[in-house]
Amino acid sequence: MQESKNQASGMRFDSLTSLLQPRSVAVVGASTDPTRIGGRPISYMLRQGFSGRLMPVNPKREQVQGIPAFGHVDDLPEAPDTAIVAVPAAQVLATIEALGAKGARSALIFSSGFSEVGGEGVELQAALVDAARRWNMRLLGPNTAGVFNANHGYYGTFASGLERGFPLPGRIGIASQSGAYGAHLLGLARARGLGTPIMVATGNECDITLGESIGWLVENPDIDVVTAYAESVRDVDSFIAALEVAHRARKPIILQKVGRSSLGQRAALSHTAALVGDDKVFDAILADYAVIRTNSSAELLNIAYAATRRIYPVNNSLGMVTISGGAGIIVSDAAEDIGLPMPSMPEASQARLKELLPFSSPINPVDFTAHVLNDLALASQFTESLITDGGYASVLAFFSQAGTVPSIAPRLCEAFKTVKQAHPERLFVISLIGDEEQVAPYEEAGFVLFEDPTEAVTAIAAMGRLGDAFARPLPEPQTFEPIELPNGAISEACAKTLLSDFGIASVPERVVSDAGQAERYAAEIGFPVVMKIASADIPHKSEIGGVLLNVMGAAAVRDGFETLMARGRERAPDARLDGVLVARQISGVECFMGIKRDPLFGPVAVFGLGGIFVEVLKDLAFRRCPFDVAGARELILSIKGAPLLLGARGRAPVDIDALAKMLSELSVFACRAGVRLQSVDLNPVFALPTGQGAFAADAVIETTEVADAARS
Amino acid sequence: MQESKNQASGMRFDSLTSLLQPRSVAVVGASTDPTRIGGRPISYMLRQGFSGRLMPVNPKREQVQGIPAFGHVDDLPEAPDTAIVAVPAAQVLATIEALGAKGARSALIFSSGFSEVGGEGVELQAALVDAARRWNMRLLGPNTAGVFNANHGYYGTFASGLERGFPLPGRIGIASQSGAYGAHLLGLARARGLGTPIMVATGNECDITLGESIGWLVENPDIDVVTAYAESVRDVDSFIAALEVAHRARKPIILQKVGRSSLGQRAALSHTAALVGDDKVFDAILADYAVIRTNSSAELLNIAYAATRRIYPVNNSLGMVTISGGAGIIVSDAAEDIGLPMPSMPEASQARLKELLPFSSPINPVDFTAHVLNDLALASQFTESLITDGGYASVLAFFSQAGTVPSIAPRLCEAFKTVKQAHPERLFVISLIGDEEQVAPYEEAGFVLFEDPTEAVTAIAAMGRLGDAFARPLPEPQTFEPIELPNGAISEACAKTLLSDFGIASVPERVVSDAGQAERYAAEIGFPVVMKIASADIPHKSEIGGVLLNVMGAAAVRDGFETLMARGRERAPDARLDGVLVARQISGVECFMGIKRDPLFGPVAVFGLGGIFVEVLKDLAFRRCPFDVAGARELILSIKGAPLLLGARGRAPVDIDALAKMLSELSVFACRAGVRLQSVDLNPVFALPTGQGAFAADAVIETTEVADAARS
Repeated sequence: MQESKNQASGMRFDSLTSLLQPRSVAVVGASTDPTRIGGRPISYMLRQGFSGRLMPVNPKREQVQGIPAFGHVDDLPEAPDTAIVAVPAAQVLATIEALGAKGARSALIFSSGFSEVGGEGVELQAALVDAARRWNMRLLGPNTAGVFNANHGYYGTFASGLERGFPLPGRIGIASQSGAYGAHLLGLARARGLGTPIMVATGNECDITLGESIGWLVENPDIDVVTAYAESVRDVDSFIAALEVAHRARKPIILQKVGRSSLGQRAALSHTAALVGDDKVFDAILADYAVIRTNSSAELLNIAYAATRRIYPVNNSLGMVTISGGAGIIVSDAAEDIGLPMPSMPEASQARLKELLPFSSPINPVDFTAHVLNDLALASQFTESLITDGGYASVLAFFSQAGTVPSIAPRLCEAFKTVKQAHPERLFVISLIGDEEQVAPYEEAGFVLFEDPTEAVTAIAAMGRLGDAFARPLPEPQTFEPIELPNGAISEACAKTLLSDFGIASVPERVVSDAGQAERYAAEIGFPVVMKIASADIPHKSEIGGVLLNVMGAAAVRDGFETLMARGRERAPDARLDGVLVARQISGVECFMGIKRDPLFGPVAVFGLGGIFVEVLKDLAFRRCPFDVAGARELILSIKGAPLLLGARGRAPVDIDALAKMLSELSVFACRAGVRLQSVDLNPVFALPTGQGAFAADAVIETTEVADAARS
Repeated sequence: MQESKNQASGMRFDSLTSLLQPRSVAVVGASTDPTRIGGRPISYMLRQGFSGRLMPVNPKREQVQGIPAFGHVDDLPEAPDTAIVAVPAAQVLATIEALGAKGARSALIFSSGFSEVGGEGVELQAALVDAARRWNMRLLGPNTAGVFNANHGYYGTFASGLERGFPLPGRIGIASQSGAYGAHLLGLARARGLGTPIMVATGNECDITLGESIGWLVENPDIDVVTAYAESVRDVDSFIAALEVAHRARKPIILQKVGRSSLGQRAALSHTAALVGDDKVFDAILADYAVIRTNSSAELLNIAYAATRRIYPVNNSLGMVTISGGAGIIVSDAAEDIGLPMPSMPEASQARLKELLPFSSPINPVDFTAHVLNDLALASQFTESLITDGGYASVLAFFSQAGTVPSIAPRLCEAFKTVKQAHPERLFVISLIGDEEQVAPYEEAGFVLFEDPTEAVTAIAAMGRLGDAFARPLPEPQTFEPIELPNGAISEACAKTLLSDFGIASVPERVVSDAGQAERYAAEIGFPVVMKIASADIPHKSEIGGVLLNVMGAAAVRDGFETLMARGRERAPDARLDGVLVARQISGVECFMGIKRDPLFGPVAVFGLGGIFVEVLKDLAFRRCPFDVAGARELILSIKGAPLLLGARGRAPVDIDALAKMLSELSVFACRAGVRLQSVDLNPVFALPTGQGAFAADAVIETTEVADAARS
């Protein structure tokens, strides 16, 4: 529903503009006390010079903090773009109705006492949404700390942290599901000199979601990088839409998604569901887009800062010049930990550099030693060679305090600037310690600066991951011909038949009723075969000698049929015999494949090695469905145990093509099966040696009933 | 040798005092230019007011930088405590001889051109050491950036970073194998307001080692925390001695040991050696002492800072109060990641707090919401309850910018100070954002302050690990009755016999020469048994039907003996038959145990699950030998696959007592076997169900020859 509303203009998230960039704002519950919740927004806007019209609403005052106030919303001289609602919960609904009648386009609600307290609060919140829909208004909150847009002097927030200082100019936006944490990010950003002019705290998200907030920030021409804090994604469509818009605009989203530790507690929907941590599903979704997920605010801001340079190197690799061998080792360690390649310099260039400076170690990291501080032309030559000969997409120079020592700094900065300007497409990072004024020339020249080289490596790796993500096309929206799943529980045989229509091979097996059939079928599927007496009345077949393993050749199959039927008749005289089940006897590497329907993101595929690997080590990889064979192959090879599939320690490599085809087909099946499909477990799948295929030995499909699915 | 020298006084590392806290210093190669290598130390000392006598040596000047100079070392008016040597490499030896003759007690050598350039440099360096030993002088370097001790105004360093600012007062020492990186740490510490008054850069370590430098810092009463940067430990005795002294003095060592990524490249000495990353061995050594190893300088300084409070909570647990639910989730995630427990508050206390403040969420983290900012008495009550009722060893309060807002800060700080003073043994950490002056009152009150709550969690966890390490007694030095290993290659049978003397059980097996013997032996070891034709001339026994599996009962064993001998005679007529090997047929969980002799730290034990676990997943744990059964059990249970041993997914739990006993006995064997023992591999070891023991199925012992061992 909301989507069509957003698509009215060319911008998808345009309907938030009245909220985030208002030309006029009413403050309902305006306070004369600049430290109260209804007073802070006015105080902040007065101090920062709001560019639009500010209209306090207060029934008892003619003026509030020196500007004319209005007794009631009805008395407002114009329909405000937005309203800040700071009245007790019980008065909020009437306020929204009045604002709607007045023609307000949006409102944000500080008040708490809604869905977060449960019970009546939930109903009260629903009533707000109803009212807003009727009046075609957008709502933020309730229970939100609000928003600010410093580029327009707009402060619709009561965050007390602003008392300490307003946001610095810059191009980083903040969207947060926690107001206190959003303000914390602002504080951290200020402390390290980063500008975050726009923040949205979404509160209870009765209408406007985190996804929409991210989307609006992405579409804002004043914002290059969006940072976000999420506890749970409540509306997946707007969230995914925001990720898509960000990808197209080449604007990265740096996301702190929390709640990893509580995820195991969620009730399991099925065997697969119990294995799939929701958090890993979330990571699988993000992997399709240009999103970097971080675990700490410091890391989030480091990466956001580096991203403000807007250089996202594709196929990233790191070359380093350093005055300290130790820093070189630290960076090598960190790069290996994070998977950022640091290939060596070409041998010819190494020889040439070694000639220029015999003390140097010109492999990569290129240690040109503190000697270059006495001959900065040499520093330029080495760095130019690193870029031109080494061809690294990213360059890190370690200078620490030497780079800001007054006797060296100005010339060093100039020398490096020349190198940088010749290669504007490279990400050029310097590890530097200095006061604000000391590092300012480097900042102005467009270098990315970090004190700690380890943090530099983390940020450089993130820029490369963004580059790769931007270079990869987004998954095309696909429509699927729906298939009809049977009603009721689905038997193993039925599950295998359903899947075989998608090309997913099970271990070949058939129940035959005479020796001739047995012989012909065995010849068809290939030897050796397993033969079992087929009877629903004999649960423990091996106890009556009803199972023959490793049956080779036509004669043995014929004999086997007669033997099994005879044993059945003799040893289980009351059982109804259906014949003999003949199956190809397969031994291969045990794998595990499955589908879990995520309540938010739809079907997600999981792959792992079978047995103890899946049960004890949880060595699993996830991907949102559908994906093609190449995607499946990537997924398969991403597990830790992948060497076992590739032929570790003298084993034969398995048929990864067949596994990948099967997994990709399973992902398509999951999409076509629709919302009734809850889970699929193929466990084990036997992967045979290359060229011999992969076969599911068991298949379990779980569905909801038609009525349940319709409700959900 | 060195140890006896150090033990002259009560302090083990006393012989470094003349170097690090000199009463008089000669600067040989003193320069009038304060930016040159021979000029910087003088310039720094003049600016900072060196407390001792400063004596420049310069043959061409009567004065250097305004103070009287001497033409030659011989002309010095007194024997200097130490000398700074800043002359070309070729002149260093003569300088050391002259200093020795003059009676100097120590010297540090800036000059490079020694062992780091190889060839003649190595010999030149050895000559320096000879000279110093003759004169009973201690030497630092050569190729060192030097030392400083700001507490005495002593600056024996040419680090250019000091131009930007001298170290702040404080109680953190720096010992570094890289001068540039030591200076980098100083710069980072200054930038975040941390005082690091003493630094030692060890350079080539021709005499004084990193270990001795750490040891001296630990023994210095002005230092509470030692930070260290290491590339490789060259002298293990002084290093371990320093760790021991630190443990006894309850002073933590925060260590950045680099070079993780290059370790795989080192040539393997044996199968086990190839699996044992030296880096993991190093970690295993550190685990015995109170050392925290970090991967980045930022983390190192965060932890060092927290340690300056000298509160090391044993059995650490974390209680949190927060004004932001989001920060609570972030901290819960981080604590779970790092293994820091956050148990819930007692239910009665939760109920009481909920009554005090209905909006609060008083479980743990205790979210008392931003409401408490209006009622700070409530903040105190909640925090007091967290400490008293919850009993957490560490407390984290999240206030972010709200904690430094002028309208709140002074009262909040006072309130928390009162709570803190009532519980001086708790580690009290506040997540706070503010300028230097804003946070100063909290610093003065002794709180540990972090901007980012994630960094706070890392530091709190480290304090707990230190507390546990200090509370644990150091491993007692043990002497071992040496055992004689046979000369030459050790056969599998011989290896098993050697180990069986230590109670390490192999799979029972014996070569028998008649059917009666076979029957008696099988009865002794228990059925089923495996029988194999015993002949060195039949390498592929199964090809001639020479292996019988799963032999049950006396008759079958007798028959088996005759069958195998007959087949041997018939199918391998030229082979010499030794009889038949009878072995107990064992199936259990496959494990892997081994010993690797580390060139520095001696024998190290390794444990893992067998097969693919050790080969592909490298799921291994290490520990320095020897250790007792409890230590072995800890080691065994520390692997990721431990659930497989404990009975995961319905399997029978294995006999961990037997495994632990075997591993502990192996560690004692390794110590008694002495330096000739290179490695032991028991692969596989079969662990049977509880009560049934563990048996090595194969044993390989590798040794060096007697002559080699004597050389090493």
